[in-house]
Parts: sequence; structure tokens; C-alpha cells
Amino acid sequence: MAKIKTIDVNMGIFEMNDRCAEEVRQYNRANKTLMINMMASPGSGKTTTLLRTIRTLKESFGSACRIGVMEADIEASVDAQKMADAGVRTIQIHTGGECCMDASMTMQALREFKTDDLDLLFMENVGNLVCTAEQDTGADLNVEILSIPEGDDKPLKYPLMFRVCQAVLVNKIDTRQYFDFNDELFVSRVKELNPSARIFFLSAKTGEGFQAWTDWIKENLSERT
Amino acid sequence: MAKIKTIDVNMGIFEMNDRCAEEVRQYNRANKTLMINMMASPGSGKTTTLLRTIRTLKESFGSACRIGVMEADIEASVDAQKMADAGVRTIQIHTGGECCMDASMTMQALREFKTDDLDLLFMENVGNLVCTAEQDTGADLNVEILSIPEGDDKPLKYPLMFRVCQAVLVNKIDTRQYFDFNDELFVSRVKELNPSARIFFLSAKTGEGFQAWTDWIKENLSERT
Repeated sequence: MAKIKTIDVNMGIFEMNDRCAEEVRQYNRANKTLMINMMASPGSGKTTTLLRTIRTLKESFGSACRIGVMEADIEASVDAQKMADAGVRTIQIHTGGECCMDASMTMQALREFKTDDLDLLFMENVGNLVCTAEQDTGADLNVEILSIPEGDDKPLKYPLMFRVCQAVLVNKIDTRQYFDFNDELFVSRVKELNPSARIFFLSAKTGEGFQAWTDWIKENLSERT
Repeated sequence: MAKIKTIDVNMGIFEMNDRCAEEVRQYNRANKTLMINMMASPGSGKTTTLLRTIRTLKESFGSACRIGVMEADIEASVDAQKMADAGVRTIQIHTGGECCMDASMTMQALREFKTDDLDLLFMENVGNLVCTAEQDTGADLNVEILSIPEGDDKPLKYPLMFRVCQAVLVNKIDTRQYFDFNDELFVSRVKELNPSARIFFLSAKTGEGFQAWTDWIKENLSERT
């Protein structure tokens, strides 16, 4: 198994979060690193989606785009191991019980990870639709992954998450026939909360929909450089 | 649509939680009410499972078992409405942004709901595998619902949740052929964290597995009275 680096961050102090988030954004801007915060419920397919996203980007960019992943978990390292085994530059962050990443944890992780040579940095946040939405990590873009089995009513129940995201990925569309998920209703519910949100329907299993989603990342990358 | 009662609780104070949880347990014991705290990720099927559980119990008990449901959500009322429409005595609790219920919120809700004539009280907690596990609500039993699409690795990533539960429901087994979910591996991971946990495989859609799960509730009910 590939070796992965693990650091433990749990400062437990949230009050300086806004100042810290700005610091994170300045740090990334100075290094020309685009940082994307990926949020989702447990089991929505964050890690698989991220792996396929990176593979798709690499097919198009080759080594011209240097990509890294910060895996945030409460205490486990299974996702980081999967990333590292796939040859992705990865750091594991243990939040020590905290339900999500905040900006100060992120700043610590950026410094430890030495992200200054990266073009694109993904953060896989802790699996949680509530707390993660409340904490600005300092990422340039927030993306939520929701999977078909979770249902089209989630914007009604976790509205803040849909408000803070620039893009929403609807994952596991290959399982569509087994679940009642109304695409139109879902899109209208998201648009009501966040009219400018981009919504991509995709399947991390089959690869369907990954072209449009990775094109959107590329647009954002080209604006950064 | 059936009318539902809504109260807003957001005390924001967690320090007295342990004392308060004991107060909740005493209150329920005095009233011979068994309280079950249902926890899960968003989209695992909490509401559908609860509706079918209540229907199954009613088929067996008739009106001899008085059942109520407290629906805890951040701000929405869609689940409570489903319960009320199904003729279930329901109260909606809005946590005002808090990511889970604590004991003081629960105590407030019990008093508002006037639960003293209930035999069985379910709490559908906020969809969240992290914070909910950390807060003792004062419930007599903690039950987690995990669904097949979420994957068999969740005990590795959210261990506290599996430690604090007396029972784990594995829901959506009707979708088993479309997902890689290793039952044996999952059971061994749960048992490692919590050897005495009961694990029930079921489908809230088809009803499979509900007999064993509701029998377990009945056992606990008979111990209470």
C-alpha cells in the first residue's frame, strides 16, 4: 500500500474562522492553486467521484495539471489510502471528532501539505450535510455531491448546503430506475435556493456526465491562472 | 393536509447535557414511555422506515400501543407532514441550525408534546452520522439506520455512531444487486466496535425484515411495562 501522510488537527476554536478563510484564499491565490471543497452525506460517493474526476482531468491535461487531495475524516484513513493507492498526491486530515473542516484546520493542512506547487486542490470534507455547510473553509469553490438514492427532497431539508455551493453533482444516476428521484423537481428546488448553482447529473461508476463536470472545473482553472 | 404542531428549540447550551439526559430518562420511566432515538445520514430512509415500523406495530398491537413521533429537523417540516398525513401523532422540532438534538431540547419537546400517555416514542433525529452520536438525548435506545447504497465501510469512518447504538438497521436491501455491499464484512466491522449491537437487514419499501426488527422493539416494550 502506498504511504500516506497523516496530521491531526483539532484546534476547537471557530471564532477566527472568517479571517482565517480569507487567509486561505490569499494563500491559494498567491500560489495559483484552485481549491475545491467537496461536501456530501456519508455514502454519496465522494471518494469514487473524486477519483474519477482526477482520472478524467489527467486524461485531458496529462502532467500539465498538478492535482492534490486533502482527505478530512474524523479518525479513519480509508479514503486517503484509496487516493494514494491510485497514485494521487494525498494528505489525511484527522479532525479529532470535529464534524467538519474549518478555515484554521485548512490553513494548517495547506502548510503541512506544501500545496504551493499545486494547480488544483480538492478537499474531501467530512461526510455531513449540516456542519460542513456552516463553516467557510476558505475554498474557492464549494461543491456538493448528492446521490440518487438519497432522494430529491434534500434541498428542502438541508437548504444551507445548497445555498453555499457553486455546483451540485447528482451522483449514481446509473441507479435511477430503482429510486423515485424527480430530476425536474430537484433542479427547481435547488434553483429556488441558489439560482446560479450549476447542476451536473453523473455516475462515478459508469463515467456518464463527467465531461461536463470536468469542463466546468477547467473553466474555473483557466480563470485562476 | 393534517395539521402538525411545530415548536422551535435552540437553547445553544450543551454543558448540562448529561444531567438533562438523566432527567429525560426519569421522565419517560415515570410515564412508562419507551423512547427510541433514530439516527442516520440524510437519505437513508429514516421517515419511510419509521412509517412502516409504526404500521407493523399497529397491525400487531392495534390501539393497545400508543405511539408518537418527534421529528427533529433544522428548519423543514416535510417529514412531520408525512407522519401526520399517515395518522401518526407527531410533533415537529426545529433545531434552528443545530446539527442534532441534545437532551435539553428533548426535554422541552417531551413537555410540549405531552408524551405522558405514550407507550412508545420515536425521535427522528437530524440527518447526520457525526454530531447526533455525540449527544445523549436521554433516549432509552439508540438505533442507527444505514442504507445499502451508503456502503459497508461506514463503521470504519463513523465509529462512534456504531458504538452508541443498541441496534443497527441496514435498509434498502431490495437494492442489493446494484451496489457492492458485503454483509459479512459489515457485520464484523460493527461487532468489532460494539459486540452486543443487534443488526437487522430490512427494506422499508418491501417490508422484508420488519418482523424481526419490530419483535425487538416489542421485547424492549415488554421490559418497560
